[in-house]
Amino acid sequence: MSRNILVIGAGKSTSYLLDYFLEKSEEEKLHLTIGDLKPDSISEVIRNHKNCTVIQLDIQNESARQKTIKKSDIVVSMLPAFLHSKITVDCLALGKHLVTASYVSDTLRGLDEAVKEKGLVFMNEVGLDPGIDHMSAMQIIDRIRDQGGKIVLFESFCGGLVAPESDNNLWNYKFTWNPRNVVLAGQGGAAKFIQEGTYKYVPYHKLFRRTEFFNVKGYGRFEGYANRNSLDYREAYGLEDVLTLYRGTMRRTGFSKAWNMFVQLGMTDDSYSVENSENMSYREFTNLFLPYSPTDSVELKLRHYLKIDQDDRMWEKVLELNLFDDQKIIPLKNATPAQILQHILEDSWTLADSDKDMIVMYHKFGYELNGKKHQIDANMVVIGENRTYTAMAKTVGLPVAIATLAILNKKITTPGVQIPIKKEVYEPILKELKSYGIDFKELEVPYLGYNPDSVSNGD
Amino acid sequence: MSRNILVIGAGKSTSYLLDYFLEKSEEEKLHLTIGDLKPDSISEVIRNHKNCTVIQLDIQNESARQKTIKKSDIVVSMLPAFLHSKITVDCLALGKHLVTASYVSDTLRGLDEAVKEKGLVFMNEVGLDPGIDHMSAMQIIDRIRDQGGKIVLFESFCGGLVAPESDNNLWNYKFTWNPRNVVLAGQGGAAKFIQEGTYKYVPYHKLFRRTEFFNVKGYGRFEGYANRNSLDYREAYGLEDVLTLYRGTMRRTGFSKAWNMFVQLGMTDDSYSVENSENMSYREFTNLFLPYSPTDSVELKLRHYLKIDQDDRMWEKVLELNLFDDQKIIPLKNATPAQILQHILEDSWTLADSDKDMIVMYHKFGYELNGKKHQIDANMVVIGENRTYTAMAKTVGLPVAIATLAILNKKITTPGVQIPIKKEVYEPILKELKSYGIDFKELEVPYLGYNPDSVSNGD
Repeated sequence: MSRNILVIGAGKSTSYLLDYFLEKSEEEKLHLTIGDLKPDSISEVIRNHKNCTVIQLDIQNESARQKTIKKSDIVVSMLPAFLHSKITVDCLALGKHLVTASYVSDTLRGLDEAVKEKGLVFMNEVGLDPGIDHMSAMQIIDRIRDQGGKIVLFESFCGGLVAPESDNNLWNYKFTWNPRNVVLAGQGGAAKFIQEGTYKYVPYHKLFRRTEFFNVKGYGRFEGYANRNSLDYREAYGLEDVLTLYRGTMRRTGFSKAWNMFVQLGMTDDSYSVENSENMSYREFTNLFLPYSPTDSVELKLRHYLKIDQDDRMWEKVLELNLFDDQKIIPLKNATPAQILQHILEDSWTLADSDKDMIVMYHKFGYELNGKKHQIDANMVVIGENRTYTAMAKTVGLPVAIATLAILNKKITTPGVQIPIKKEVYEPILKELKSYGIDFKELEVPYLGYNPDSVSNGD
Repeated sequence: MSRNILVIGAGKSTSYLLDYFLEKSEEEKLHLTIGDLKPDSISEVIRNHKNCTVIQLDIQNESARQKTIKKSDIVVSMLPAFLHSKITVDCLALGKHLVTASYVSDTLRGLDEAVKEKGLVFMNEVGLDPGIDHMSAMQIIDRIRDQGGKIVLFESFCGGLVAPESDNNLWNYKFTWNPRNVVLAGQGGAAKFIQEGTYKYVPYHKLFRRTEFFNVKGYGRFEGYANRNSLDYREAYGLEDVLTLYRGTMRRTGFSKAWNMFVQLGMTDDSYSVENSENMSYREFTNLFLPYSPTDSVELKLRHYLKIDQDDRMWEKVLELNLFDDQKIIPLKNATPAQILQHILEDSWTLADSDKDMIVMYHKFGYELNGKKHQIDANMVVIGENRTYTAMAKTVGLPVAIATLAILNKKITTPGVQIPIKKEVYEPILKELKSYGIDFKELEVPYLGYNPDSVSNGD
């Protein structure tokens, strides 16, 4: 008798996830049900697969949702995090395992005892970031500890970028994920981390000017800026005494300094609506954020306001986005600056059908062993195939899929609300990911500690 | 038979308010009741006045609150705005007039119909700013309109500063009002205004770098930065077609550029607690916001981070506040950066007993009359007497007191939730304020429009 997997939400990130289940469906006796609000966008190949059922599912419809969940053996929710809560409650009530790639909310954490009592596995943060970052970091941290080492530094960066062969704009960037999240990245509170035992707090308007640099052999140079709260991971990773703890987002060098222009102008603000935004030109939009002048051009006002030198390459980046175009019109009514900026960027940064994306992850581990300091750098690079089979979909979807099957097959059994930081969980997943080309290169480097000038060289 | 005035909250700003009522108590047959959570801080002179009763009043105690309000003929609430709501509801239920110096909340606005039905006057925003700004502006706006003029520009600025004779620090600033409000000023959303028909949006981290300048004859030069939302006043003032509308806060020149250092560092952030803030030195606090370095000094890191030139006068302002002191200790547990900054500033910026404060208000009115453009600038300067009888207490308290008596004496009768923008209200109040030395100087100047370089010269 086949086991029923219910996947809720079949968006962008699910191509590899769905293929994984269907490819294994015969051998593993799986039946896949895909519930989506708009199932029409799901491909014919998947719809017509004999081990697959596609249904229209509105998760706000309680009876339909519960009926569907009841029929499954395990539920995978690929919906945005804020839509999970009802599914979570149903899975608990109906006794179903649950797998997501989203952060554990406080509400969900509060259900841990009840989930354990029912012997259920609620596995979260098992995508890319969060997901592969946890698993790959814990594998190396546990190994260092098993050798008797003491971790003194942990830094971890991840970025969804464009592959070198498709990298043809001055920003070296395209949207490979939800563009809205990219525009709003870093907002909602100061970034917090520790460097050599000192707490550091960076406000949003300085975030993109406090970057670190990395080289990855064969892929060149990258930069990273801090994520919201690195300190959250102290307890989960058992790093209470670590001297340096820093998590961040990777971009190609120069991106952050240029992005900072939007931050400084106020174009990333999502807290208010621009009056009469509809039918405003890109040029008028830009001028909203600049001082009034009866004579000066928007161009010169912007250069002066942001102190952009005449020969600064940032200027070409601004021009490339048509920010001064008085013919291009914003079609959005009462939109926030962030929504308008997103629209303008999508003009330039949308992946073409044949474009390939690239995921880069970079960890640094500093540790003391037998009185000496050591450092291991580890990096992962995954290149996508095209706009549907992206590296993003692969690195988010495959660990979710592998975890789901491992839970069904009772290879992962410890119950509770959890993230993949236990050996029982990360060992089999990382091993299988390797067979899909998702793999880390490790380098022993001299201990560099935290020094903003040091670039750990991947060669 | 005497009329009963209930004043709730006898804080800093009430010295002139209470004196006004007591001085008039015989002639006007007034009995004053002062209800305060901590009535011990009220002076003996007031307590022992035969027409005054001082009571301990906890406004969270419903029965005590209602009993006290029931006995009064009119209620003056000098509590912080967020504490008004229960008093408002009681005044409505018990049929009592209400006077406050606070902004009208959305909840209060919703009570307008009910207040009108009961024939009550709920007069709000009748202090300094909001208050005198409304009244003095509407007086001139109405006069221009009565002459057939059309307002095209309105700018209004107000600042609570230190009087020239007590101005002895490099910032030309001391706290004359709630220091917490000063530290948090400008937060909570982009500033919004219109210049020559163009909307302008300024994010918090740029607010203090977008200043305008003013001269006031006899008092020298000032600067102003934009308040949160100038557009809110379009409807109230009947300025829907105005081309320039800009409200702001005044400081001595150079203050905003220097204050911007704190904004840039992130020291004004009130959204998170600093770990282990207690027993941290001022120097360690400053270092929280600067990049880590194993060798460089906190001083040089700050200069480099904020690009402060070697000969910039801002540097002396930083030094004056002891921001690099490693002996001075923060006594606050789990405090936010804003709370810690406030503590550090209070070391330097607290008024001495004999210090005098100064209120400056500056309006600009641009208008068209008979096909020609005109401009009127109007300014008000009020100097305080000492730390208790401040210009702030005078300009906030007297209009509240005058309005209260005018309502009692049925000189202000139009019922409803309102602000003092009707002639019936502002004429008698402004006239009486004049006798207390609170008065505007008007100047006809050439129409300057909005030009960031123009300084309307008060000489």
